[in-house]
Amino acid sequence: MRITSNFDSGNISVISATDCNDVQLEIKNDHNSEFYQWFHFKVESNAGEEHTYRILNAKNSAYPDGWVDYHTMASYDRETWFRIDTEYKNGELVFKHIPEFDHVFYAYFVPYSYERHLDLVHKSQLMPDTQLITLGETLDGRDMSVLQIGQPAEGKKVIWITARQHPGESMAEWYVEGLLDRLFDHDDATSRLLMDKAVFYVVPNMNPDGSARGHLRTNAAGANLNREWMTPTMENSPEVLFVREKMFETGVDMFLDIHGDEAIPYNFVAGCEGIKSYDERHKQLEESFKAAYAAATPEFQDVHGYPKDKPGEANPTVAASWVGEQFKCLSYTVEMPFKDHNDAPDAFYGWNDVRSAKFGSDALTAILAVVDQLR
Amino acid sequence: MRITSNFDSGNISVISATDCNDVQLEIKNDHNSEFYQWFHFKVESNAGEEHTYRILNAKNSAYPDGWVDYHTMASYDRETWFRIDTEYKNGELVFKHIPEFDHVFYAYFVPYSYERHLDLVHKSQLMPDTQLITLGETLDGRDMSVLQIGQPAEGKKVIWITARQHPGESMAEWYVEGLLDRLFDHDDATSRLLMDKAVFYVVPNMNPDGSARGHLRTNAAGANLNREWMTPTMENSPEVLFVREKMFETGVDMFLDIHGDEAIPYNFVAGCEGIKSYDERHKQLEESFKAAYAAATPEFQDVHGYPKDKPGEANPTVAASWVGEQFKCLSYTVEMPFKDHNDAPDAFYGWNDVRSAKFGSDALTAILAVVDQLR
Amino acid sequence: MRITSNFDSGNISVISATDCNDVQLEIKNDHNSEFYQWFHFKVESNAGEEHTYRILNAKNSAYPDGWVDYHTMASYDRETWFRIDTEYKNGELVFKHIPEFDHVFYAYFVPYSYERHLDLVHKSQLMPDTQLITLGETLDGRDMSVLQIGQPAEGKKVIWITARQHPGESMAEWYVEGLLDRLFDHDDATSRLLMDKAVFYVVPNMNPDGSARGHLRTNAAGANLNREWMTPTMENSPEVLFVREKMFETGVDMFLDIHGDEAIPYNFVAGCEGIKSYDERHKQLEESFKAAYAAATPEFQDVHGYPKDKPGEANPTVAASWVGEQFKCLSYTVEMPFKDHNDAPDAFYGWNDVRSAKFGSDALTAILAVVDQLR
Amino acid sequence: MRITSNFDSGNISVISATDCNDVQLEIKNDHNSEFYQWFHFKVESNAGEEHTYRILNAKNSAYPDGWVDYHTMASYDRETWFRIDTEYKNGELVFKHIPEFDHVFYAYFVPYSYERHLDLVHKSQLMPDTQLITLGETLDGRDMSVLQIGQPAEGKKVIWITARQHPGESMAEWYVEGLLDRLFDHDDATSRLLMDKAVFYVVPNMNPDGSARGHLRTNAAGANLNREWMTPTMENSPEVLFVREKMFETGVDMFLDIHGDEAIPYNFVAGCEGIKSYDERHKQLEESFKAAYAAATPEFQDVHGYPKDKPGEANPTVAASWVGEQFKCLSYTVEMPFKDHNDAPDAFYGWNDVRSAKFGSDALTAILAVVDQLR
Repeated sequence: MRITSNFDSGNISVISATDCNDVQLEIKNDHNSEFYQWFHFKVESNAGEEHTYRILNAKNSAYPDGWVDYHTMASYDRETWFRIDTEYKNGELVFKHIPEFDHVFYAYFVPYSYERHLDLVHKSQLMPDTQLITLGETLDGRDMSVLQIGQPAEGKKVIWITARQHPGESMAEWYVEGLLDRLFDHDDATSRLLMDKAVFYVVPNMNPDGSARGHLRTNAAGANLNREWMTPTMENSPEVLFVREKMFETGVDMFLDIHGDEAIPYNFVAGCEGIKSYDERHKQLEESFKAAYAAATPEFQDVHGYPKDKPGEANPTVAASWVGEQFKCLSYTVEMPFKDHNDAPDAFYGWNDVRSAKFGSDALTAILAVVDQLR
Repeated sequence: MRITSNFDSGNISVISATDCNDVQLEIKNDHNSEFYQWFHFKVESNAGEEHTYRILNAKNSAYPDGWVDYHTMASYDRETWFRIDTEYKNGELVFKHIPEFDHVFYAYFVPYSYERHLDLVHKSQLMPDTQLITLGETLDGRDMSVLQIGQPAEGKKVIWITARQHPGESMAEWYVEGLLDRLFDHDDATSRLLMDKAVFYVVPNMNPDGSARGHLRTNAAGANLNREWMTPTMENSPEVLFVREKMFETGVDMFLDIHGDEAIPYNFVAGCEGIKSYDERHKQLEESFKAAYAAATPEFQDVHGYPKDKPGEANPTVAASWVGEQFKCLSYTVEMPFKDHNDAPDAFYGWNDVRSAKFGSDALTAILAVVDQLR
Repeated sequence: MRITSNFDSGNISVISATDCNDVQLEIKNDHNSEFYQWFHFKVESNAGEEHTYRILNAKNSAYPDGWVDYHTMASYDRETWFRIDTEYKNGELVFKHIPEFDHVFYAYFVPYSYERHLDLVHKSQLMPDTQLITLGETLDGRDMSVLQIGQPAEGKKVIWITARQHPGESMAEWYVEGLLDRLFDHDDATSRLLMDKAVFYVVPNMNPDGSARGHLRTNAAGANLNREWMTPTMENSPEVLFVREKMFETGVDMFLDIHGDEAIPYNFVAGCEGIKSYDERHKQLEESFKAAYAAATPEFQDVHGYPKDKPGEANPTVAASWVGEQFKCLSYTVEMPFKDHNDAPDAFYGWNDVRSAKFGSDALTAILAVVDQLR
Repeated sequence: MRITSNFDSGNISVISATDCNDVQLEIKNDHNSEFYQWFHFKVESNAGEEHTYRILNAKNSAYPDGWVDYHTMASYDRETWFRIDTEYKNGELVFKHIPEFDHVFYAYFVPYSYERHLDLVHKSQLMPDTQLITLGETLDGRDMSVLQIGQPAEGKKVIWITARQHPGESMAEWYVEGLLDRLFDHDDATSRLLMDKAVFYVVPNMNPDGSARGHLRTNAAGANLNREWMTPTMENSPEVLFVREKMFETGVDMFLDIHGDEAIPYNFVAGCEGIKSYDERHKQLEESFKAAYAAATPEFQDVHGYPKDKPGEANPTVAASWVGEQFKCLSYTVEMPFKDHNDAPDAFYGWNDVRSAKFGSDALTAILAVVDQLR
């Protein structure tokens, strides 16, 4: 048996791989950080034999509740990912699998590689009225890329979408891919109307360094970018600094920041009820957006989610709060599950890349529903 | 210059084709009927030269108002159809075109051939829980095919969808193709939930004879099937008779009958306000369905449409009225334009096959919104 | 159980379909002809039940030897065709089948519909340097279409390819589709070089009427077109007349006439050794072509085939003989099996559409090998 | 203007990027080596403006003759790569370009990333009778992967194919991808027959470390693997050591080692005439193989190539020589151009990924021609 993770977003530490009935593993910390939960590795062994894997340090991961009812994702061809039986017990994540082929990849969620990211943003620049703009460089020297879609014009709304501040939440980039595919589809009336009414600024990956490194939550400096929006620095969080600068330049009329949530088995949004400037108009916008999203797809709901912030008690360093306050605009954190969306569960695949992409494309329906009221 | 229409759904009569600046044409009547408006023909001539076509008998077609603001569809490869400038004047439909290739097809709308129909229904039989059932034979000896999708079970709703009673309204079958594609998509949560809650009976083409013959409104006997639902006969309207029989067997909890409208440049539905049993519950269902459809896509609207029937004055021989009354269920005629949907117009393509298919797939969102209230 | 053949190229006559263990069928004669062997029909019955079919009049079909070792083709979705166990005994063709789905198509070979033919030739007109030319009309009023591929120019060779004089030999049009796909592929060096050296005239279907009618060998008048090349007439064989006229206009430096052979389980060619003008140069060209084709693919061989004509004893009414003599050029009948190519057999699919297309594309390799010597 | 190369196989050093009319660049050495010639970088600037790039150190690159008549490859979307005007003068490689989009990639040849490599080998393991085997780890900790295709059996020949010992010769992996695609195609008779007669061992990338690092010729230790076959070591050349071990285990009846040549604008092979054991039988095999390859595609020729080794003077440390001598088998180095194959040139694309893949697939035709004589 050989276990490797020396590839894009790989993360595992092998404690013992001598007995296929008791493979002992640990997830590595993010660099300069205590966070960990993302794993991605390949096992080469004998097809047809049962293997039992234990992730020994699951208990102290960032969100141990995330392991409850979680089912590990697996793939033989790196394209189709399915779920395998998994249990969280005694502080360990344990899964058994009889692989059909000698090589099998396991991951916390369907990975989205930096190569695919580069393909996505560069293919996008060929689309009509689209510009790929590099805002600056990450600490590891990667491009901070934003796509400007649509020609800025008087009266057009400015809609920002960012994804994957937390790199282990790879569903966020699948979401953006789905959203972009639809936005570029000339035959789609929703997209055509939106392009008339708004300019989009889309950052498919806010944290390419953390993504490539196999991090859960942080960038190359160990910074949790979604706690850096008040005071981003070139040393710790240039990714946020660059995006903020561009936002100041463009203004923001609506903001979606795309995430995954480890624990809650539902898609949901977290809004701005806790920011200072929150008012009835903001609330109405939120209600309209949520109602429209729910009408568009049963993959969205508004029953399960985070507890609401009390007035004025929102964490202002979080992207959605900072943007909401700064620009007095509709501003949401969108959360997708690592497990499944229990309103429409799928035992075989669970929540996955394809559903994330569809959910992203459905966001356009909800955006169109509110675009005229944004400003 | 050669003009031909000797292929599936071809329809044209050449009066004069000697001068490419004045090509004179007429549309043929449906067999045994005075209806005509569907045309579909190919011109072989010289690429790069301007041609002017006049359809001389446009004035007496079934819906002369349909020609106002209508733009003829054209295709070089029979796959991509675009619009060309067209004018309705002096009772004639006149269009000019400088073709880029020697052969160009013109049609009232993107055709949907019997071969494609056969592919559609037979590929569908391979889908999970799907059965292709032949209800009987048309007058020309074609199959009257219905797809049963889902396993009938206690508590499941029964949803019927029929299309193309009027064969020239080919957008209706593109609509069904789009709806089926989505319904068969396991990754789509809307479809997955609908399959749990309902069984679908889908007739992609109620009038395969008229379709192949290039008719506008009628079947091989010249019968307008959508006026045959009270008293269908084996001689005149076996297509309706067979479907009615099956409906009696399965029951109906919801019914959509898919059509195209020649005159109105909008998608819309026509409901059951004029049937005897119409009541508050029926009205609420209608409102819910329309609101959900409008929320799903800007391709739907409820402002423009037919005048409402007065209570009790619905034509009971029309499919949607007959089914609504017979089964006391939500029952709609869905209408798509031959021109464009003016809420989201597209000057190059107008309303077309791709948008019809998307509009069909979006119907599932609206169906899911009401499915639990259907009975 | 229902058996139907009311679709493009359908052919069957039901003698008895009451007992699924003894379904009795007959193949219909070509119109105005005694030839028959092509069948194509659909059975609707119960998936999972064994059915036994007997074609009672197999013995008197055009080529009863064709039934020996022949295996019937079947398809559920009209796209994937596979073989089923078949026996020729007591002058009947007998096959048993337990269908996996309720509807199953059976055919002598994978059908190639007129709709697909129209798609093929009209899509082709969009290719660079390609013109679709209608030479005239068939007796049923269909287009006699030839594709001119490449710009005629001094020094370029003129290569003619015709297919499906015998409409039941549908593999011939699959062959042409494969050949065209490759010829239009700019990345293929063989095609690129050929386009520099030659102009192609390709008739994908010499007999569209017979094809749509479900004939084996003849056109709408009952004429075997491949016996009409000496004296074609507008009444009996306009298809040949038109092509001959165009050949006189363009000249011919090489000719391939694509066919299927009912009996011989191999791909092979039949040449011009029996025409009067056959000489050493012609022989050398033939040898070069055959060697090159054999080098390109194991789907070609030169061991099995027709007995060689004696000098001067070729039937001059056959296309390849007539062209060879008239234009003193390399001129071949290409034959593919209805059964399998026994040098590379495939028990599941046998010879089929995909292999026919590949075999057609490989012909370009053999053509390039001789193109410089053609004149 | 920003120039970056911080991605898979990136390589450039920016000397000056202040003036778009004089962008000064240098190619970096392979790590621990003096070799360099591979470049791969992205420029972000203004679409529509002319840029002039100078690679200042072209003169001292590994093969300065390679720059003569070479045309730089460019891509906007990382999928379609085209050629741009390039000149080698005064020891510098100079190219001008007016990009159509703001971001443009330039590379010595179409890159083949490690992500794509991982996709290739893992998708392949799902094919029938195919096993993906890891032979060991590279110095950077990547898998040394070999695909075993076919079930080993008495009498079957053993055919080895290795590619990309020199990582900058990325066409070698495109070649293997094309070869594998065809070998896995059940409808291809050549592949089906080969699978009956032989087992293939295919190493799509002999040097994944050098590939990812953006090297031209060497691995992570700076070793030129194609000079390591006599005495490979775990320290310098584990890649060769592992493959040799597996070859000793399986035996070798035929070997193709796939490369690119910087200077010669033709596809060609370099054989074993210089190894000690070379004899008439070996020569006959070589002649047969070359004749068959030339018959299969005009992309192969045997006029232009390397000077022939004198008897006994082959460099025994080169893979093809070592294997040829060790296993007394047909053993070839296959060379593709960085420029174009001048027998069938394409001014727009030159030699590229698609043609490399086709050339690889055509190799199977040549292999089938000799497979029965291999032992």
